[in-house]
Amino acid sequence: MSLEKKAILVVADGVGDRALESGKTPLQLAKKPTLDKLAKEGSTGLMSTLGRGIIPGSDTSHLALLGYEPHLYYKGRGPLEALGVGMELKEGDVAFRCNFATVDRSGRVIDRRAGRLWEEGKELAKSLQGMRIEGIEVLFFSSTEHRGVLILRGDGLSPAISDTDPHSSLPASVLESVPQREEKKAVKTARIVNQVVERSRGILSSHPLNRKREKEGKLPANIILTRGAGIYEKIPSLKERYGFTSCCIAGAALYKGVARYVGMNILEVPGATGRLDTDIEAKGEACQRALKKFDFVFVHIKGADNASHDGNLKNKLLMIEKIDGLVGILKDEDVYLIVTADHSTPLSLGRHSSDPVPVMICGEGIRQDDVSSFDEVSASRGCLGHLTGIELHRIMVDLMGFAHLVGS
Amino acid sequence: MSLEKKAILVVADGVGDRALESGKTPLQLAKKPTLDKLAKEGSTGLMSTLGRGIIPGSDTSHLALLGYEPHLYYKGRGPLEALGVGMELKEGDVAFRCNFATVDRSGRVIDRRAGRLWEEGKELAKSLQGMRIEGIEVLFFSSTEHRGVLILRGDGLSPAISDTDPHSSLPASVLESVPQREEKKAVKTARIVNQVVERSRGILSSHPLNRKREKEGKLPANIILTRGAGIYEKIPSLKERYGFTSCCIAGAALYKGVARYVGMNILEVPGATGRLDTDIEAKGEACQRALKKFDFVFVHIKGADNASHDGNLKNKLLMIEKIDGLVGILKDEDVYLIVTADHSTPLSLGRHSSDPVPVMICGEGIRQDDVSSFDEVSASRGCLGHLTGIELHRIMVDLMGFAHLVGS
Repeated sequence: MSLEKKAILVVADGVGDRALESGKTPLQLAKKPTLDKLAKEGSTGLMSTLGRGIIPGSDTSHLALLGYEPHLYYKGRGPLEALGVGMELKEGDVAFRCNFATVDRSGRVIDRRAGRLWEEGKELAKSLQGMRIEGIEVLFFSSTEHRGVLILRGDGLSPAISDTDPHSSLPASVLESVPQREEKKAVKTARIVNQVVERSRGILSSHPLNRKREKEGKLPANIILTRGAGIYEKIPSLKERYGFTSCCIAGAALYKGVARYVGMNILEVPGATGRLDTDIEAKGEACQRALKKFDFVFVHIKGADNASHDGNLKNKLLMIEKIDGLVGILKDEDVYLIVTADHSTPLSLGRHSSDPVPVMICGEGIRQDDVSSFDEVSASRGCLGHLTGIELHRIMVDLMGFAHLVGS
Repeated sequence: MSLEKKAILVVADGVGDRALESGKTPLQLAKKPTLDKLAKEGSTGLMSTLGRGIIPGSDTSHLALLGYEPHLYYKGRGPLEALGVGMELKEGDVAFRCNFATVDRSGRVIDRRAGRLWEEGKELAKSLQGMRIEGIEVLFFSSTEHRGVLILRGDGLSPAISDTDPHSSLPASVLESVPQREEKKAVKTARIVNQVVERSRGILSSHPLNRKREKEGKLPANIILTRGAGIYEKIPSLKERYGFTSCCIAGAALYKGVARYVGMNILEVPGATGRLDTDIEAKGEACQRALKKFDFVFVHIKGADNASHDGNLKNKLLMIEKIDGLVGILKDEDVYLIVTADHSTPLSLGRHSSDPVPVMICGEGIRQDDVSSFDEVSASRGCLGHLTGIELHRIMVDLMGFAHLVGS
């Protein structure tokens, strides 16, 4: 007799918040009848994804939610971004997030996004192919807008090197990548990265597309800047760990990257943009279709986080209503439905915070507590108590029927 | 844009308790309108400072509340007491808490406090200076009443030795300090301590002040007893770890010592005695002034713990009212205000216990739960849930804007 059951994990990115002037959080203010109805029918609680008082990153929080302890499995952002844009990585590859940026004649960065480059990235990226430095293969791929990914492939590389992206207020010098540990590999990798950045300036500066941009009064994308170095190592997939199949529905690259890293299938959904304009119905329907094929579906919704980073309450409330709509599409599936966030992004801060987020689990046999609103304060009285991301994952795996007894 | 914000941590020592005959704890019985009002406006919860079911010491609990994991940073009570009475320590010093005590002719301790010595300690301490044993410098300082601190300074010392103070019911023999590990350093250190104690008996017995005391029918302070050996190691300060400035307002030496150990500034407040008669208004006003200069102010209030050790409910209620007054002085500051205790000290036990203590956080953006009384039972329904001291500290650091993202 198989008692296995499917599950959906909906992550409403950054939806948690602090009290606004009214004394209420956006989740307390928003109209979300379906979320509230499900909260009433199910178990609720709070979650501090990485632990109390710890500010979760986007990458580490999703690793935890998918069951992978960040301190064991997080090897830097670069490889996750690379996987997210569809690149194939080999063990030992060191990958970086990159921006096309603009430097002036003296080499100082004046725009980290090259005037928000749109379409030319793919063409510019071609001109950067084929480099080989000290026996290391250099691969570069553009993704959306000004974004790209750099991969160094070959023996003896280390991710323990600093960024060349100055991040800070501009204009600022391109930083020299330096080794963060005294080891040969890091020294070599930093040296190669510095050369890649320098060569990119030479190649891109004279690229016809940039000449054209300059003539049109636009900023040239005349350098690439690197950050978030990480090494790729193959890890056991969800399927290998538990035996269930899984897929990811997400708009933004990072979340697809984390999902690929843990061996999930990626479903591309037209209209799932990872922005406020994302087509939430398309996502909901894609999730329904995915349930026919996969045991576990992870649906990521980015919009509330974007609204929070912009300090835009109206858009945050709008996204909560959209999420309510998504949950409405999924609520009648005969599966376990888990709704939560990866972290709070308070509107007042415009950054991630450690404030806990609400969690809700619905489905057959789930205990019903007295909570009838899906928000940070109500859920604190829920019968799930206070969880970490890893704990929530383990609970889900047990509900699905794929967990193992400890002992006998 | 700087989003940094200041914080006050008020620790009401030992204020947590068990249910009395009425079924209520002292916090449930006390009149504390301001604490209750702030509980209503903020987030509440419970805290088990070192973990559920663990009885916190005064030293370890404060290390945790200030963000220093006791298992990493607690090296014994001695150095904390030494720092608390203003001594400068060097790396490797082994320090002890000491009492001036009284031994009879046969060398048996008949009073561990030499009849509660008052003023003569300083003069007696002078006679103990200048010893040097096996190349180790011996320093002795008297603090309040019968209390003092011994420091051994030099190479090759170990804190892994037992007390010479018999603690137990008197009369009792002075204990011989013995090494607690089979290591040369511990053997040597124990040997030196035993010599110091023996020599102190010789020196103090013939001291004119003790002759005078005996003539007056008082007990002579004719020996020093050692306990709480600990080694001093420099640790990263709060400023080094996070970048914020901090200060401590406390009456009793230990709390100042812990604060100095973690690099805080110590504000001396006249009238802050660390006892029931402490001038709480002076402390509140000192805190207000300190906020102009420091990012984080730690205010320690000892009285409720003293009352609890004495089993005195009336005084405990009085101290709670005083604490309510202190919070009244501070409540309108534009900072994060955290009120809690280091541990419970049940009146019925007269000792620390593992019973959790209430926590409250107030300030801009803090989520408002439904709790409207600051006590052990009400706070258990608060939206902070159940914290450890380290977790509370991390939450504070994030609220202040000095925490770092884990991941990216």
